[in-house]
Order: sequence, then C-alpha cells, then structure tokens
Amino acid sequence: MPVPTIKYYVREGLLPAGRLSSPNQASYGAEHERRLRLVRALLDVGGLSVAAIRDVLVAVDDPSRPVHRVLGAATDPIAPPAGGTADVELTTARQVVADLLTRRGWRVERDSPSAEALAAALAALERVGHGAFVEGLDDYADAAQKVAAVDLGYVARNAGREDLVESVVIGTVLGEAVLTALRRLAHIDASARMYGDEGAIG
Amino acid sequence: MPVPTIKYYVREGLLPAGRLSSPNQASYGAEHERRLRLVRALLDVGGLSVAAIRDVLVAVDDPSRPVHRVLGAATDPIAPPAGGTADVELTTARQVVADLLTRRGWRVERDSPSAEALAAALAALERVGHGAFVEGLDDYADAAQKVAAVDLGYVARNAGREDLVESVVIGTVLGEAVLTALRRLAHIDASARMYGDEGAIG
Repeated sequence: MPVPTIKYYVREGLLPAGRLSSPNQASYGAEHERRLRLVRALLDVGGLSVAAIRDVLVAVDDPSRPVHRVLGAATDPIAPPAGGTADVELTTARQVVADLLTRRGWRVERDSPSAEALAAALAALERVGHGAFVEGLDDYADAAQKVAAVDLGYVARNAGREDLVESVVIGTVLGEAVLTALRRLAHIDASARMYGDEGAIG
Repeated sequence: MPVPTIKYYVREGLLPAGRLSSPNQASYGAEHERRLRLVRALLDVGGLSVAAIRDVLVAVDDPSRPVHRVLGAATDPIAPPAGGTADVELTTARQVVADLLTRRGWRVERDSPSAEALAAALAALERVGHGAFVEGLDDYADAAQKVAAVDLGYVARNAGREDLVESVVIGTVLGEAVLTALRRLAHIDASARMYGDEGAIG
C-alpha cells in the first residue's frame, strides 16, 4: 500500500495516525492493518464514499451506539430524503410497504430508512409506468428473507462479540455486492434460456 | 420540473433538446416526458451517475446493440477493473465463481463483468477475514435465481417489443433498489427475533 494513500486515509479520518517510531517514520500495527482492509473493502467493493465510510467507522468505534444505528450510517445516505414532497405515488407506495410488513409480520418500524427507501423505489417504478412490478413483491421478499437468514446464521456462527458490529457492516455492504452480482448472472442465465443465447437480456 | 434542471439534462446529453416553438421557448412532448421520468428514476432511486446514465441511454437508443450490452453499460462501472493485479485472493475467488457457474449450469461467460464483480466481492471478504461467507454462496444463488425468474416473468408479461430494453434497464436498476431495501428490512426482522428488539443488528 503506497504511503501517500495511507496518509490520505489518515487525513480523511479513515485511519488513526501511526505511532511515531522516529521523527520521520510512523509504524502501523495489526489493528491498523485490519482497519485498512476494512476501508479498502468498503471503498472498492462496497462502493461507499469516503464520507460514508467515515460515518460508519465513527459508529463502529462507539460502543454505546446500537448496532442497527451503525448500519444506518452505512446505508442511510443511499436512502432518499424522507418527508417533504409526498406525491400520490409515494403515499400509495408507503401504504404498500406498510401492508407488506404487516402481512409478513416483520418487526420493523414503519419509518425505518429502509422502509422509506423501498417506498421510494416502488414509487419510482410506478412513475415510469412499471407499477405492476409490485405484483412480484412477495417473491422478492421471500428471497430477501432467505438471504437475511443466511447472513444472520453466518454472523451468529462466526463473529465474536467484539467484532459483531464489524461483521455486520461487512456482511451488509459486501453481501449486497455478492447478491447484486449473482442476480445479474442469474438474469443472463434466465434470459439465455427464455430468448436463446443471441437475445440474452441479462 | 424546473427549467434549469431540464436545461442541465439537455446539456449533459441525458435529454434531447426540445422543439423550438419560438426564439425563447422550447416545447417538450410525450417522448421527452417519458425519457425525463427514466432519467429521474435512474438518478434518484438507482443512484447512477450522470455519466453512467448517459452511457445507458446511448445504448438504449442504439437498436443494433444487443440488450445485455445495454445492461452492461448500466452496471459495468460498478464492477471493479478486471485483470491487472490478480492476487491470491482474487485468483481463488475467480475459481470459486467458475465452479459455481458450472455447478448450477448457468449459461454465463466466465469473463462477464458480473462474474468478475462477484469474484472481487468474494476476494474482499476473504481479505477482511470473512472468507467463510462463501459457505452460504449457494443459498445466495438460490435467492438470486428466484428473483431473476420473477424479473424475467415480469418482462415477458408486461414489456412490448419496443420498450423491452427500457423495461430491462428499469427492472435491473430499480429492482436492485427494491431488493436491497427488502434485504435490510429482513435483517432487522431476523435480528429482532434472534437478539431481541434491543440488540437489533439489521
């Protein structure tokens, strides 16, 4: 890892400064290396911005902060700003989301940023003339529930108490990259079967 | 929609210029409005950059371009640059992906950008000490396959030949936003059940 990159991360608050071993040299230990790997993963694969990573790390390092707030810090910037211009589409979509949560018995607060993000996506689909997409929502929810069960099982098996928060952040951000890539691969396969290889629409 | 915003989109190549109805006034028709809604959806909910949207639209408007190349234009910028520094983790991860594709019989080229993106995510997990995540890969693939089947079914039922490409782009980008939000909601629910509401880690 080039020294200017490390200095940049320190300057941006993503990495603590190294321990000065001489006036011109700083040394970095195992904790630094681990933090550095986490930053690289969130940056390169997770596609988070430097600002978003800084927020996540502040939350990770604050033991008094509930774990789901840490994740909020990672993913809330992706969610659209709540409130304000609730047009017809958004109002309808929020009701669809509330009904979904009730129907499936999911223990989620109605004003969770993810619920709002879901409503925003459904409203956007309605606006571009693809409101019928909502018919497949429960199949999507089945898939999401399955993946979430895998994730929670993984965290329960593999994460010690001390790195629970870090594991959840990694699983959320990198797991999303895994799922996105797999969905696109499955699209390619499904369209090759439906339309033939020439017309593959994945 | 404020006029300066429309002018900005025209300048950035996201929208064709309106028809001049007088020296100081341009009029925009139904096609324009439809394109405008698509741009807003990709920008606001899909989180694509202006540059990425421009690439997608060029591809959408080029009838000679195969549909899966259009999607490539939408999502390739997310995938990490292929080749170059293939370290041990990436080489191993590529083999894991190749084995997965063979095992599931997915008709996907090995050097597809999505296959490379998947390998990059798995390599990143390995580097941050979460290589064991790969044990759940087939459960993830099951979920992705289920969602892809829903998507393809939707496109087959709802999209006319002429807006097939647009439907696929919308489904890929907005469907991803839907799935991401649902996964986070399912996390919240699953962790509320596992750890109690206080320790919710979703």
